[in-house]
Amino acid sequence: MRTLITALTRAPICAKVAPTAFLSRRMVFTPVHKDEQLFVDTALNLVKQAGTLVRMAFEAKECAVNTKASDTDLVTETDQAVEKLLIEGLSTSFPDHKFIGEESVSGGAKTEWTNAPTWMIDPIDGTTNFVHRIPMIAICVGLAIDKQLRAGIVYNPITHELYHAQVGMGAFKNGFRIHASATKELCRSVLCLSMGIHNRTIFGDSWLDKAASNMRNQILAGVRGHRSFGSAAINMVMVAQGSCDGYLEYGIHSWDVAAASVIVSEAGGVMLDPTGAPFDVMSRKILCAGTPELAKELISTLTHVEYDREA
Amino acid sequence: MRTLITALTRAPICAKVAPTAFLSRRMVFTPVHKDEQLFVDTALNLVKQAGTLVRMAFEAKECAVNTKASDTDLVTETDQAVEKLLIEGLSTSFPDHKFIGEESVSGGAKTEWTNAPTWMIDPIDGTTNFVHRIPMIAICVGLAIDKQLRAGIVYNPITHELYHAQVGMGAFKNGFRIHASATKELCRSVLCLSMGIHNRTIFGDSWLDKAASNMRNQILAGVRGHRSFGSAAINMVMVAQGSCDGYLEYGIHSWDVAAASVIVSEAGGVMLDPTGAPFDVMSRKILCAGTPELAKELISTLTHVEYDREA
Repeated sequence: MRTLITALTRAPICAKVAPTAFLSRRMVFTPVHKDEQLFVDTALNLVKQAGTLVRMAFEAKECAVNTKASDTDLVTETDQAVEKLLIEGLSTSFPDHKFIGEESVSGGAKTEWTNAPTWMIDPIDGTTNFVHRIPMIAICVGLAIDKQLRAGIVYNPITHELYHAQVGMGAFKNGFRIHASATKELCRSVLCLSMGIHNRTIFGDSWLDKAASNMRNQILAGVRGHRSFGSAAINMVMVAQGSCDGYLEYGIHSWDVAAASVIVSEAGGVMLDPTGAPFDVMSRKILCAGTPELAKELISTLTHVEYDREA
Repeated sequence: MRTLITALTRAPICAKVAPTAFLSRRMVFTPVHKDEQLFVDTALNLVKQAGTLVRMAFEAKECAVNTKASDTDLVTETDQAVEKLLIEGLSTSFPDHKFIGEESVSGGAKTEWTNAPTWMIDPIDGTTNFVHRIPMIAICVGLAIDKQLRAGIVYNPITHELYHAQVGMGAFKNGFRIHASATKELCRSVLCLSMGIHNRTIFGDSWLDKAASNMRNQILAGVRGHRSFGSAAINMVMVAQGSCDGYLEYGIHSWDVAAASVIVSEAGGVMLDPTGAPFDVMSRKILCAGTPELAKELISTLTHVEYDREA
């Protein structure tokens, strides 16, 4: 593909974020709760344990043990086991903490969004990938205190990529600091997106017109390509590490994006509502970009749909 | 995502391809050339060496050595170095062999498609991914003899995934046999695709209408999702290993798909022209699926564009 690529004029990686610029705009870590660091360290240990569960299930060969369990049963069981491990582990250490995740919502409960330390958990983001053995899945654990997102952990146990961030401390992948890209123009960008097929259930086929029109506008603006990895959290850490320049999606849940949103912000990226309003983790829509300039141009390509807030 | 996934009814992995069914429809390896195995073994060794070059370039931090080289220069240089390594290595061992790749075409030569043993080489498939440090790139080496595709090697040196196949011998990933999925219906499928932005240069914006319409038809047929990994070869090995169920693209070159097409076929998958005609590596379009039934349904969603044959 050499002949194509020589026409590209992407800024070198070293220009993405100058270290001094990065540091100068970081705040110092100022805990909202005196035990905040303990909360995060405890969650990190639990997430690593959960990773072993997920990896074992992902690599299981049902044939070999001749069970009737389908992949779908396997992912459901693994999802529940991981959620249990995380919630029980955190509850034992911190009995007054709250939890937001699919478990509570699927049980019919209204999402409880209070000032208490609250964990927003997606045990496996990318369940269709899991079922199809596409190795792009993530355990997502976000922490909010006083309704402020404070920390995020996103772990792909298949590829052993552990991302984490705390407000004021930066974002890291396997211990190394990561930075969002410095790209300012769509014509130099690779975007992550999902066609958001689930949105058809709410908005009907008119959703498909909007999604196709948004994508078309981005192509007409000269975007280098679209990628679709099948997991909101994976798409977002691709933005956080500067591999992709932007990502947007409608119809996501708070537990899909809470953890990764802290990672994107701490990597120097921009978190917004797709309309350009401030990011609201409960709004069921999201836009990330490496820079405010790119976010603005990306927003100009969009026609929106509106969801009821989750809490 | 558990509540969504419990509604899925994908067949368990063990049902994908029963080993006996797989073996019974395999032909025995019957070399077309007496030295065919030597050709493939030589290429495998060279591809592994080339992988080290690509990995080192991918992981290079230009900042650290304070050069002015942009990522684009880096990928161009790496592309040329890999092509040189492969062509010189194969030419030294087999002076009468021919080569088809971007190098010859970008030099203005007409693709030379003869009965001689011919290597179809893409040194780095997924150059935009390389530039953006998305770890989905592939070194592709296909072998044709008497104009028959006989062997394929696809190597992602970043994730250390080495796929290879020879006609009649099956397809392998890092030495383990792989199988395409047994999925027969779009409503149980995950599809790989690319928006094929490059096709706009030939067909104008009407290409975008066709691409969007094809995607929409697949969504209306109930497809579980679209994935887009940014490399034809990576998309194809995802089909070969049963992770994705189908893939189609217009505007590819023979060197992008020759190697992976042998891997898909030998994994039990179906290689076709998107119209349903037999696959023609020189036709610049491709459709792969795990089963003929899925291929047929996928074809029914498509409106086509036609390219001049490459040779």
